[in-house]
Amino acid sequence: MSKVLSGMRPTGRLHLGHYFGALQNWVKFQSECECYYMSADWHALTTDYADTSAVDENTLEMVADWITAGIDPEKSVLFKQSGVFHHSELFLILSMITPLSWLHRCPTYKEQINEIKNRDLSNYGFLGYPILQSADILLYKADIVPVGEDQLSHLELAREIARRFNNFYGDILIEPKEKLTKAARVPGLDGRKMSKSYGNSILLGESDDILRDKVKNMFTDPLKIKKSSAGHPCSCVVFAFHEIFNREYKNREEKCKAGAIGCVSCKKQLMEILSEFMGPFTEKRKDLIADKAYLKKIVETGCRKAAETAHQTMEEIHKAMKF
Amino acid sequence: MSKVLSGMRPTGRLHLGHYFGALQNWVKFQSECECYYMSADWHALTTDYADTSAVDENTLEMVADWITAGIDPEKSVLFKQSGVFHHSELFLILSMITPLSWLHRCPTYKEQINEIKNRDLSNYGFLGYPILQSADILLYKADIVPVGEDQLSHLELAREIARRFNNFYGDILIEPKEKLTKAARVPGLDGRKMSKSYGNSILLGESDDILRDKVKNMFTDPLKIKKSSAGHPCSCVVFAFHEIFNREYKNREEKCKAGAIGCVSCKKQLMEILSEFMGPFTEKRKDLIADKAYLKKIVETGCRKAAETAHQTMEEIHKAMKF
Repeated sequence: MSKVLSGMRPTGRLHLGHYFGALQNWVKFQSECECYYMSADWHALTTDYADTSAVDENTLEMVADWITAGIDPEKSVLFKQSGVFHHSELFLILSMITPLSWLHRCPTYKEQINEIKNRDLSNYGFLGYPILQSADILLYKADIVPVGEDQLSHLELAREIARRFNNFYGDILIEPKEKLTKAARVPGLDGRKMSKSYGNSILLGESDDILRDKVKNMFTDPLKIKKSSAGHPCSCVVFAFHEIFNREYKNREEKCKAGAIGCVSCKKQLMEILSEFMGPFTEKRKDLIADKAYLKKIVETGCRKAAETAHQTMEEIHKAMKF
Repeated sequence: MSKVLSGMRPTGRLHLGHYFGALQNWVKFQSECECYYMSADWHALTTDYADTSAVDENTLEMVADWITAGIDPEKSVLFKQSGVFHHSELFLILSMITPLSWLHRCPTYKEQINEIKNRDLSNYGFLGYPILQSADILLYKADIVPVGEDQLSHLELAREIARRFNNFYGDILIEPKEKLTKAARVPGLDGRKMSKSYGNSILLGESDDILRDKVKNMFTDPLKIKKSSAGHPCSCVVFAFHEIFNREYKNREEKCKAGAIGCVSCKKQLMEILSEFMGPFTEKRKDLIADKAYLKKIVETGCRKAAETAHQTMEEIHKAMKF
């Protein structure tokens, strides 16, 4: 059976971007593969090292969202990176064989150094972030890693590191293959990519009141001044959501273009769809979050299971390296 | 009680340079401090990553030398770095808060990159070597670290990392102080520093036959052509050893300068001193090396003890970081 590893940084509650971009696929993998889903809390340190007080709480919030979205802790291993020390050990070992030049050429490294200006990222750990990511994957011999296109270079690095390791010490590590997930592009309220740091997101389990406010403020086609104006659905956030939820959107598209439907009714209907979608979600999430002990137990059990698999790989590695 | 941490890379059998440069001091610390002596096998990977087959065997050889030299496994904790996973975990955590610039400015980094030409050292792990060294020290809250002058910059880095950590997360780590060891400068047979890689060393436990050959080949004052020539003890390796062993060397110095003693007799007497010194050493070493199971047990027990101390520090760190 194929093994899947994927992870998210514990930055708190998840939004619709996470749901349609990743979680939907995670749920699907569960029926076909052995799945390891990880709260990447050590990764969170690469950028948020100065204040770590919320990281552990954020892991629980995130796991609550995962389960609410359909991840089954009986089927998948839900764990946190810092709970399985083997990640740090493999990181150290792979550090010894990874040329600095491989890290410097990572497109994401330069990009983030340029983009994130409010924090000092010139740390050793931040440069080595893709090695830690490689260790995460290789530790479980995951052969499938669901990634977006922006992460392809990191997966290529993981493969190169695996090859170099195997070349030195023998055939131990598995070169992972990417599973490019055909994720719907989920826009934020303002039309940019939905992101917590942009303040334009709709959280999973959002209440009706807040949903109403957010839909009201959603960006629509500025050229559609009144109901009878010809609209341009392609530049309308509200329409993008109708498309994601896939409810007769072709019909809606035509009507909008023809000036037969106005933004107010479009928003009203979206509000209904969102409310219907969130309803059971909000309910389930509330129950989960009320039982922190249960969530902690899920993570503890997951860490134990993950450590078993990780331990096996590390045993092979120690043997191969004669350590 | 003060805590001491020191370590050596497991590169095989030790020589007189190790004995007079470090081991003698290690033995002294045992009666005053809680001592942790470590085989730095992960450090060995920073330069010898391509072939690790001898590392574990080398640790046992080295521990045999330590014990033969007077390190008491009942008093001191003798362990190997790779046997205490907490080293890798603290390395990972400290990586996140250590600026790259602190590493680039390390004088030893540039020096080694320039000097070691037969291996590719442009790896991520080699750059991060002083962070791993800091983790080694800070993990045991060692307040005393015996170092030579060339290692002072690394210890300063360990202090800076400890300060930065404490600044972010609270007062957990101890800033270690250096204990500058007044080590005798031990010359190799050719007058350069004694070093295994120069092929000019006298191993601990060397047999009389080999000792005789080595003393015979020792570099002496080239200006002392015959016994009656005035000698220059300051440029004579044989004299340097008489000085180290401290046997009436003042008297010998005067006689040599006055042409009252020849190199042949000087060498003969050194041979006797060395043989007398090595005799019990060779015997004890032979017994130890014959009992690999015993040596393995020493290391295993040491790892367990070291892990207990390391675990305590890591618990405090997790708590402080709320992880």
